[in-house]
Amino acid sequence: MRVYLAGPDVFLPDAAGRAAALKAVCARHGLRGVSPLDCLEGEPSAWAGLGAARRIALCNEAHIRRAAAVIANLTPFRGPSADAGTVFEVGFMRALGRPVFGWSNTAALFTERTRAFVGGGRRGVDGAWRDDEGLLIEAFGLADNLMIDGAVLASGGALFAAEVPAAARWVDLSVFERCVAAASRMLLGAASRC
Amino acid sequence: MRVYLAGPDVFLPDAAGRAAALKAVCARHGLRGVSPLDCLEGEPSAWAGLGAARRIALCNEAHIRRAAAVIANLTPFRGPSADAGTVFEVGFMRALGRPVFGWSNTAALFTERTRAFVGGGRRGVDGAWRDDEGLLIEAFGLADNLMIDGAVLASGGALFAAEVPAAARWVDLSVFERCVAAASRMLLGAASRC
Repeated sequence: MRVYLAGPDVFLPDAAGRAAALKAVCARHGLRGVSPLDCLEGEPSAWAGLGAARRIALCNEAHIRRAAAVIANLTPFRGPSADAGTVFEVGFMRALGRPVFGWSNTAALFTERTRAFVGGGRRGVDGAWRDDEGLLIEAFGLADNLMIDGAVLASGGALFAAEVPAAARWVDLSVFERCVAAASRMLLGAASRC
Repeated sequence: MRVYLAGPDVFLPDAAGRAAALKAVCARHGLRGVSPLDCLEGEPSAWAGLGAARRIALCNEAHIRRAAAVIANLTPFRGPSADAGTVFEVGFMRALGRPVFGWSNTAALFTERTRAFVGGGRRGVDGAWRDDEGLLIEAFGLADNLMIDGAVLASGGALFAAEVPAAARWVDLSVFERCVAAASRMLLGAASRC
């Protein structure tokens, strides 16, 4: 059963090696991991004339459409939230109605990360945290923006997060493996009941 | 015709006033703007027992499902990319196959913004920009992550961006109005041909 491996892992120096490592974990749990780097079987010939960015975007969308679930690396990336491409893909799969699982190598919650990012923020008379421009800081005790946490839970997926030393943030796969194990139980358990 | 107004505008100090201003622009162009702050007509009674964050997420998803298009404020928000909730909603609508329009009060491209965010980055022997951890910086000449630009174009929507003084970034609606006008021409033009 295919699972799409969303995440900023494609930006790592050895992106191909990283994709292989993620897929090996999936295989151990009976799942076929599909990386954004994978070629798309049966890519429409019409896409050949598009630029690289357009083709990558369409390929990734097609990979997600063919997957039973998305497993998203939600480790914060260049800001308090997950990588934008990953978040897009979480939203994409949520609209398709299939499960989204998320994992993060940071245990700090979104409010805490956002406050650190904006230099602390300040608390208004209404008790809400705001940044220096007065823009609200979400404070729901969630792992990321409420659309992301909400989608994962509503989709039947689950979120896994643990604090990993900064130097191992893009290396450690223990949280990922817990996430894959849960996805496997859900997807293969469901399949075996059919 | 309903258009869903995705964006970090909901975090502004006067979020209700901002939503009203965005809707007024839509109305001038014959569209009914729907804000994430709007109550959902016919909200399922089962949602009443959920926490606020879960209900907001489900309401926004339902608003998007009922909309003819998404018009997304992609002005960078707490990092080089657009607001995470907004990006989620762009992905969500893209999966539904209806048009996504984007607008931004920053003309700087994603590569430039990301390089500024990571302190410049460095260029490898392969010519690619990377941050201090060696993670790649996208360099496709796009406005944001390739999934976002790609989705807008593939959906039949369009992107509008212009540089607005920093102090007016969360006030100026001129780029938004250009975006709404284009969405109106596309949506209402299409409707009148039916």
